[in-house]
Amino acid sequence: MARTQGSHSGTTGPRVRDAALRLFARHGYAAVSMRRIAQEVGVQAGALYNYTPDKQSLLFDLMRGHMEDLLAAWADRSPESDPMAALEAFTRFHIRYHSQRPDAVFVAYMELRNLAPENFAVIERLRREYEEELVAILRRGVAVGAMEAPEPKVAAMAVIGMLTGVNTWFRAGGRLDLDDVESIYWDLVRKAVAG
Amino acid sequence: MARTQGSHSGTTGPRVRDAALRLFARHGYAAVSMRRIAQEVGVQAGALYNYTPDKQSLLFDLMRGHMEDLLAAWADRSPESDPMAALEAFTRFHIRYHSQRPDAVFVAYMELRNLAPENFAVIERLRREYEEELVAILRRGVAVGAMEAPEPKVAAMAVIGMLTGVNTWFRAGGRLDLDDVESIYWDLVRKAVAG
Repeated sequence: MARTQGSHSGTTGPRVRDAALRLFARHGYAAVSMRRIAQEVGVQAGALYNYTPDKQSLLFDLMRGHMEDLLAAWADRSPESDPMAALEAFTRFHIRYHSQRPDAVFVAYMELRNLAPENFAVIERLRREYEEELVAILRRGVAVGAMEAPEPKVAAMAVIGMLTGVNTWFRAGGRLDLDDVESIYWDLVRKAVAG
Repeated sequence: MARTQGSHSGTTGPRVRDAALRLFARHGYAAVSMRRIAQEVGVQAGALYNYTPDKQSLLFDLMRGHMEDLLAAWADRSPESDPMAALEAFTRFHIRYHSQRPDAVFVAYMELRNLAPENFAVIERLRREYEEELVAILRRGVAVGAMEAPEPKVAAMAVIGMLTGVNTWFRAGGRLDLDDVESIYWDLVRKAVAG
């Protein structure tokens, strides 16, 4: 257990979120108390409430932060005008971004069930926004005759499911590194929506 | 809450498993007590132990049962000698089987973290066995020149991730029925591994 220390540091907020993410990913939201999170951070339980009003807010902040960071990281890239180049960029970006954040991705999928309805609606909107980035790429590809995807929304969900699945099996240090995995998946994605 | 009733019935075992699956899927394994499962079934907490030695055994039985039923259902089908026909059969089978058991699929993925190491090893072996069914189809397709998949194991994980992802978005009663979804995914899978 971390030692108990003062909670006046400006770094306590991020440490609360890190600890909560780790514990939610390991044990599940419903099984983790605020007291347990405080122990992990090394502050008194009461001090946690300087950083978050309650456990639901903490979960919501983590999930919203994950989606907002994802959208910002994608928006930060120079856009590709060619739809195939954009699809390759999305494929490689999605695999790399998600494989580097396994806990956040796990919690983002598993704990949707524990969001209050108004929080669920916000997260759903952000997910939809991210999915629509891929849908738009597919629609552009179809429009210029470079791709064939009669149901772009379904194809987008299929591609995202495929790419996020890397987290369930990929481990660094194996025969294939992440570059190899990105290239193999890109080959599959490219062919799946080829015209 | 279900009424408390006698636990002598031969149907109590399945009812214990159904209740545990429902509660684990809703709240997570770590947050659900044996007492809570007993309440849901409508038996005294002590009576549960006629059916399972402990909560870990219950989780393991659910996950092993899910994988064994899946393997048996796949083995029950008439095998397709043509690799493309076999791949189509696998695609449609996987989507339909998993979409009909959302709780079991959710628990099978989410609660791997809560399996004791020796139980985890058994479940991993069963998952590997199922994945190898698809790998074998891809290898046969490549061997006869009908498919191109330089890394059949990675391609199998990609296809399974794509297909299982249907559970995250498909809802019956929408614009597309499950037959439509199967056909759209089959088109994507077929093209992804086309020669």
